[in-house]
Amino acid sequence: MKAHVLFSGGKDSSLSALLLEPHFDIQLVTCNFGILPTSPVAQEIAKELGFSHQIITPGIDILNKAVEMVKTDGFVNNAINSIHRQVLFMLAQNKDVSLIADGLRRDDRVPRLDLSEIQSFEDKNKVLYCSPLMGFGRAAINKLIESNLVITEEESAGMLKCDYEAELRECLTRDIGADKASAYFPKSHKQSRVISRIKKANRA
Amino acid sequence: MKAHVLFSGGKDSSLSALLLEPHFDIQLVTCNFGILPTSPVAQEIAKELGFSHQIITPGIDILNKAVEMVKTDGFVNNAINSIHRQVLFMLAQNKDVSLIADGLRRDDRVPRLDLSEIQSFEDKNKVLYCSPLMGFGRAAINKLIESNLVITEEESAGMLKCDYEAELRECLTRDIGADKASAYFPKSHKQSRVISRIKKANRA
Repeated sequence: MKAHVLFSGGKDSSLSALLLEPHFDIQLVTCNFGILPTSPVAQEIAKELGFSHQIITPGIDILNKAVEMVKTDGFVNNAINSIHRQVLFMLAQNKDVSLIADGLRRDDRVPRLDLSEIQSFEDKNKVLYCSPLMGFGRAAINKLIESNLVITEEESAGMLKCDYEAELRECLTRDIGADKASAYFPKSHKQSRVISRIKKANRA
Repeated sequence: MKAHVLFSGGKDSSLSALLLEPHFDIQLVTCNFGILPTSPVAQEIAKELGFSHQIITPGIDILNKAVEMVKTDGFVNNAINSIHRQVLFMLAQNKDVSLIADGLRRDDRVPRLDLSEIQSFEDKNKVLYCSPLMGFGRAAINKLIESNLVITEEESAGMLKCDYEAELRECLTRDIGADKASAYFPKSHKQSRVISRIKKANRA
């Protein structure tokens, strides 16, 4: 059975794919709204991980609507949630897709779907949805990452991430300027990028 | 790193161990309160799965307290939750234990810990806690079970399960009789037992 794993090039979505790998045929899926050149970055990391990879291009209206939500709300949570839901829905319409996975963790607040929403999404779209990291806390995930992935950490400003936030931030920046846009996002902290995976034979 | 996986001999806790297997040294742990001879059953299944296995014997007062809770509440949820919390706590006191896992699923209502409780448990006891199946719904778990485990299904009455419920039900039966005890539990439905695992080489 194939698992379509939403893939930002970050350590969580990479680890999510690695956890599913023994049990499903992994197909990584990266969203690109055409705002930033994130596709080659995601493709490169996917290749390093050894997984099939595809880019999907949801309508720009999804991102534009999210920009308006941020400006109305004064924070990004609902906007990110809204993008994630619409991307899941879009992916589920593909007849080739029977199981969708993402990299959401137990401690993530955004994006997040509650149980009834998930059940409704699965029922309406005849698709399975799972978040393999949902049962793990940050420390356990760090242990899993340590033994599976080589990562680099940099200040987030210097790194092109292939997630919703990167293009949402860019759209907001073009609309209201970098300073105002930055104010809506959590303060910059070190972000990680996956360099390669640690194959079992190479593990301690 | 070692993972201590709470193990009832059922398909969920077995699958939980299988998901963790590529990443941790698995140590299965079955609770037995000395009420029913569940230990040999759990040991046999653990052997079939190929994992190390140990029995722990929490104090009978935990079970007696749970019996009183059922009689007071009129249902078993709080009692099962109470047993699970105390077993987790007991296991966490063992210096050899650094990560505890269980077989709880996304759709399980009992036992269940909320996020703040989990974080507090991890912090206070300097231990990691995870539920590898928490990000998966019933249908996805069934797919995972199909490709990993050979199971048999029987009416639950005929099968000795190695979970909290089996000994709790037996204690209640001794206390108030089988009919009254049964009324507290969900109606009997088919329960499954793990017979063996499907090794990768044998999979389709």
